[in-house]
Amino acid sequence: MASVPTGDAGLARLLDPASIAIVGASDNPDKIGGRPIHYMRRHGYGGTLYPINPQRAEVQGERAWPSLAALPVAPDLAIVAVAGEQAVQAVDQCAELGVAAAIVISAGFSETGPAGRALQDAMTARARAAGLRIVGPNSQGLANFGNGAIASFSTMFLEVEPRDGPVAVISQSGGMCAMVYGLLRQRGIGVRHVHATGNEADVSVSELACATLRDPEVGIVLLYLESLREAGPLAQAAAMARARGVPLMVVKAGRSEAGARAAASHTGALANEDRAVDAFLEHHGILRARDPQELVRYAELALRSPLPQGPRVVVVSNSGASCVLASDAAADRGLDIAPLSIATQQALAERLPGFATTVNPVDITAALLSNNGLFGQVLPVIGADPAADMFLLDIPVAGRGYDVDSFAVDAADFAQAASKPVTVVAWQENVAQVFRARGLPVYADEMQAMDAMAALFRLRQLRERGDAAAPAAPQGQIASDPAPGVAGGFLSEAESLALLAQAGLAVIEHAVCGNADEAVAAWRRMGAPVALKACSKKLPHKSEHGLVALGLNDEAALRTALSQQAQTLASLGVRDGVWLVARMQRGLHECALGARMDPVLGPVVMIGSGGKYVEALQDVAVLMPPFDADQVIDKLRGLRIGTLLQGVRGDPPGDIPALAAQAVALGRYVLSAGSRLASIDINPVLVGAMGQGAVALDALVEVNGSGLPAPGLAA
Amino acid sequence: MASVPTGDAGLARLLDPASIAIVGASDNPDKIGGRPIHYMRRHGYGGTLYPINPQRAEVQGERAWPSLAALPVAPDLAIVAVAGEQAVQAVDQCAELGVAAAIVISAGFSETGPAGRALQDAMTARARAAGLRIVGPNSQGLANFGNGAIASFSTMFLEVEPRDGPVAVISQSGGMCAMVYGLLRQRGIGVRHVHATGNEADVSVSELACATLRDPEVGIVLLYLESLREAGPLAQAAAMARARGVPLMVVKAGRSEAGARAAASHTGALANEDRAVDAFLEHHGILRARDPQELVRYAELALRSPLPQGPRVVVVSNSGASCVLASDAAADRGLDIAPLSIATQQALAERLPGFATTVNPVDITAALLSNNGLFGQVLPVIGADPAADMFLLDIPVAGRGYDVDSFAVDAADFAQAASKPVTVVAWQENVAQVFRARGLPVYADEMQAMDAMAALFRLRQLRERGDAAAPAAPQGQIASDPAPGVAGGFLSEAESLALLAQAGLAVIEHAVCGNADEAVAAWRRMGAPVALKACSKKLPHKSEHGLVALGLNDEAALRTALSQQAQTLASLGVRDGVWLVARMQRGLHECALGARMDPVLGPVVMIGSGGKYVEALQDVAVLMPPFDADQVIDKLRGLRIGTLLQGVRGDPPGDIPALAAQAVALGRYVLSAGSRLASIDINPVLVGAMGQGAVALDALVEVNGSGLPAPGLAA
Repeated sequence: MASVPTGDAGLARLLDPASIAIVGASDNPDKIGGRPIHYMRRHGYGGTLYPINPQRAEVQGERAWPSLAALPVAPDLAIVAVAGEQAVQAVDQCAELGVAAAIVISAGFSETGPAGRALQDAMTARARAAGLRIVGPNSQGLANFGNGAIASFSTMFLEVEPRDGPVAVISQSGGMCAMVYGLLRQRGIGVRHVHATGNEADVSVSELACATLRDPEVGIVLLYLESLREAGPLAQAAAMARARGVPLMVVKAGRSEAGARAAASHTGALANEDRAVDAFLEHHGILRARDPQELVRYAELALRSPLPQGPRVVVVSNSGASCVLASDAAADRGLDIAPLSIATQQALAERLPGFATTVNPVDITAALLSNNGLFGQVLPVIGADPAADMFLLDIPVAGRGYDVDSFAVDAADFAQAASKPVTVVAWQENVAQVFRARGLPVYADEMQAMDAMAALFRLRQLRERGDAAAPAAPQGQIASDPAPGVAGGFLSEAESLALLAQAGLAVIEHAVCGNADEAVAAWRRMGAPVALKACSKKLPHKSEHGLVALGLNDEAALRTALSQQAQTLASLGVRDGVWLVARMQRGLHECALGARMDPVLGPVVMIGSGGKYVEALQDVAVLMPPFDADQVIDKLRGLRIGTLLQGVRGDPPGDIPALAAQAVALGRYVLSAGSRLASIDINPVLVGAMGQGAVALDALVEVNGSGLPAPGLAA
Repeated sequence: MASVPTGDAGLARLLDPASIAIVGASDNPDKIGGRPIHYMRRHGYGGTLYPINPQRAEVQGERAWPSLAALPVAPDLAIVAVAGEQAVQAVDQCAELGVAAAIVISAGFSETGPAGRALQDAMTARARAAGLRIVGPNSQGLANFGNGAIASFSTMFLEVEPRDGPVAVISQSGGMCAMVYGLLRQRGIGVRHVHATGNEADVSVSELACATLRDPEVGIVLLYLESLREAGPLAQAAAMARARGVPLMVVKAGRSEAGARAAASHTGALANEDRAVDAFLEHHGILRARDPQELVRYAELALRSPLPQGPRVVVVSNSGASCVLASDAAADRGLDIAPLSIATQQALAERLPGFATTVNPVDITAALLSNNGLFGQVLPVIGADPAADMFLLDIPVAGRGYDVDSFAVDAADFAQAASKPVTVVAWQENVAQVFRARGLPVYADEMQAMDAMAALFRLRQLRERGDAAAPAAPQGQIASDPAPGVAGGFLSEAESLALLAQAGLAVIEHAVCGNADEAVAAWRRMGAPVALKACSKKLPHKSEHGLVALGLNDEAALRTALSQQAQTLASLGVRDGVWLVARMQRGLHECALGARMDPVLGPVVMIGSGGKYVEALQDVAVLMPPFDADQVIDKLRGLRIGTLLQGVRGDPPGDIPALAAQAVALGRYVLSAGSRLASIDINPVLVGAMGQGAVALDALVEVNGSGLPAPGLAA
């Protein structure tokens, strides 16, 4: 297991400090400087508290100290809860005294504008130089209910009674940290770590994720992010979570343009391209949730269930309508309502009244009202059916006459015996609570339950993919310059194709010619109709200038076309033009491949429908390299071009393996190419019938200017 | 306003009966035959109750009668709560005595299988003959809290305290009826009508919708359906709702294949094609919700808000993270987070601290904690901004130190003054209740709130579309036979094109030729390259047999192609072949048009991407005729082909008006064509650049055999 790059010891002491100083300690437990002391006394913090308050001898019953300098030892942790210039002074003093870490609750830094940012940057630089880690500023604080180190002023710990448990919640936003905590506790789930990083001048959510993953009691880690500023630490947290078999789940808000704008206002968040975020999270086996409520619903199921073997759900309900709603919801979420075996159906028929439904969904009907034991009789029967990967017990109708307690006991016994995910839908909160008290994950409607089960199945698929390769972030890679000696900008088509051929992609047979005689000679060598394209890096989009002639198959036509293109080039003032003579190729489908170097997440590869309308059609999937052919083929399944490549309307199936091999080669190349590479567009990649290959017909490579900051750049 | 087709008076008395007999009356208020009496006494039913119980002189304090025949008058309504054969006898007796309507609670009919169905059918036929309307059998009953006529045994009226209000809930499923009722009451919404139709042997959900719409106190009607057996009554309910300005909202479950299967098990529901259902509901201005929970969320907003003028939402929150989540959710639901005016931003800046955000979303930050009045100061400022069509007040973080009561008062005052939709998001149920108590619609998360606002905007768009034309169901139309003298099956391409030309569509210039000489003459007349296609109704898919030759422009080529096709026809045993000579046409995009006669909903028209892969690409929208060109253009906006038709990658814009005109003509034709018409496929419709038209190149019309049952059939 890799170690946190810097300040690892500081981070460990941050979560498990032997002593804590509170700068700005208040005797009033409702003040920001009073809350942490109140919480730590209440939750049995076993270390030493050093309230700093020059006006008082005692604070909330603890001996107070006049200043940090007056303390007998340098504390592990200092909570800075004083305003403005005093906060900066306190941090500087911590650095001087050799404090390991400081949580700066004080606001008034980068969130207020450029002056605040400058203040924050300078303070952080001084702290780093002294080996002091900083959480915040503008942080709600950190809370560890495993040892009572509640260095946080969150009101939520007063609103909802804390209980230690297997969950770690870490958030850039203090509000979301508290709210996710509240939602978890409402569902009866115990939470150990509740950490908010605020402005993230130093310590990030991902670093704290790594630190909590070193706590053996942590069984699930939930993150709320508005921006990904660094890929490495999150990739490392993912690797640690994978190694321990702990689910790591993330809300990355600011998915939309409007959301990214709001995030920039909120935390100055850098906008991440959302498809690249998806690819990154998937690559590292991190489950993404849309919003905090979804995150908590996923967490509840993941905490209480093993991972499912497959996507088949068996539904049991006392309402026929809920059976219909559950089936629709399953279809919406890509889960199967698979038929039960004949043996199961017969066994059900023996136990249920004649008008009940013994297929899946199993409708035990209102007969449950007259025989409350039906539920317990039916469950073992369906539990034994081989078609069941997961179960949904759907009790929308309950109340007088229903023995909900016995249903809950039966359901809990069943879940225990089945060793498969079991969810409950209860529309009424009082019914939900009865099931929840027995440790079952409960949802308010069928869609939420199916959505959570689909997420759990996805988590299994992410895990099955095996250990992801090393983090794909730019800093981790051996970089080679894609275009040594080139200042920056577009390579010509000929240079682009050459680079791809070198990278192991199949490119169209072609020759680069300086004049008509060379072009004619190339055509003769190929012995087939050719395309003639004028090439210049000054004209990356040559087809818009009429600089492409297709299907030429005699000398006169070739010379005429070349002379016309030469005139066009001259009229455009292009003097460095050469000609590409390329064999005309037939195929079944036009696809497109592309790559981009994301400044934070590293390289991503795109695959999808190609041709003229590639942008308008938006039929594209994004992968993060390295990936294998199976992963490409899996992505193609979700695309319209993937359907066409299967062979429809009498078409033969396309050479999907050849296309996947092109994508894999591209992924391998961009990983090695370093950040001089800006983007690659290959369109079309012509895919033939199975066995006939896939070949890049046109390509455009862009490199960054050498003046750009380029971490990991070899040249 | 149209009247209910049959038994209207019976339906009115069903909801407002002067007297009610209860067959199987029980003294025990928890028995099925006891509950309605208990409820009616408790909710002040003012009419006469006639408990029928031969064993008792009194039931729950009311005088009991030994039999229906012993009653002094024929009651308006009879509740039948006896089992098996006794239930049938009771219904027969009601018919004899001239009872207006019977609610058959008893089960054991069509839901149990063919024998039960036969029993039910026979009973219903006898009742109809006598003018007796039947609700059920297998119905939970009807409840009208406006007059206390609670002819229902639903347990939910014990679980949740009833309160009269503007809502009508009508459902095929008793369980869903009760559950929707419960969800509404949990949100503090008063409900008047709660009706379940059970097996629907006679009275349908749609008929009861019409009946409740005659109640002037009803302000919103919510339906739960698993199948649409008839289109007419629902169309009529929609027309009544529209005339009164009352929102009509529907859950039509069984959307998916799995759901339709479950619905068939549950209520023997006929599967409706879901896209046709969508088109039908949209055509009639009915808002569709995915599930009952969504239905209730939409209802809460529609009840408490005017309709919005546009899709622009202004968000105010005390959490920056919620601002981000709300922005993402708005984007997901197609709503805009529009910028505030400079004046508004300045006014906000005067009231908010420096680190608050004065753009939209407005983040008033935790400063609210130190100044609880901020909320009330900010609202009037944003209320005046012209960019606001709707508002979301998002208070995820509350608790100690927050004066939630004053926020709720401020918010309610604001909503009153704004006369625009105002929603609240409160993550904590105790906070939600404070806002709800002030009459504000409250949601548990940002996605739910944005979803409800998007639905309300959609409701406005549906209403703006103006009065829909008369119901498009088959029974209502003047039908003409598309192919008199044709037994059934496919028309040839020539016949299909002729029919479309007659219907007013632009079709490709073509000639039908019996031999090579005629084909050559036709080509000469056209004076342009032509396509030659062998035509026979025995070969609807001619391109699969190589019977299409394109781009012919000399006599020899034409004769050769025709002779080859003649050989192919002979080898396929086709003797009725003719040739279609059609002018070759250039265009920008291949689209497709189609029509189908839905057996329940009437004709629907499809428009979308055309060409070889029309099925695989699934880029299609469905409309219910009649519709106008604007509606077609609106639908095209949601399609990929719609994007291409705008003109991308240097293409000129396509002739969208001409394509829309083709669709409108097709819609008009299929409305008049009667149910002999089975389907029409027009692919491709070649669309040229703006001003160059759209023309049908190929078409295939299918007619039903004359032996098929065909309501409204002219031939």
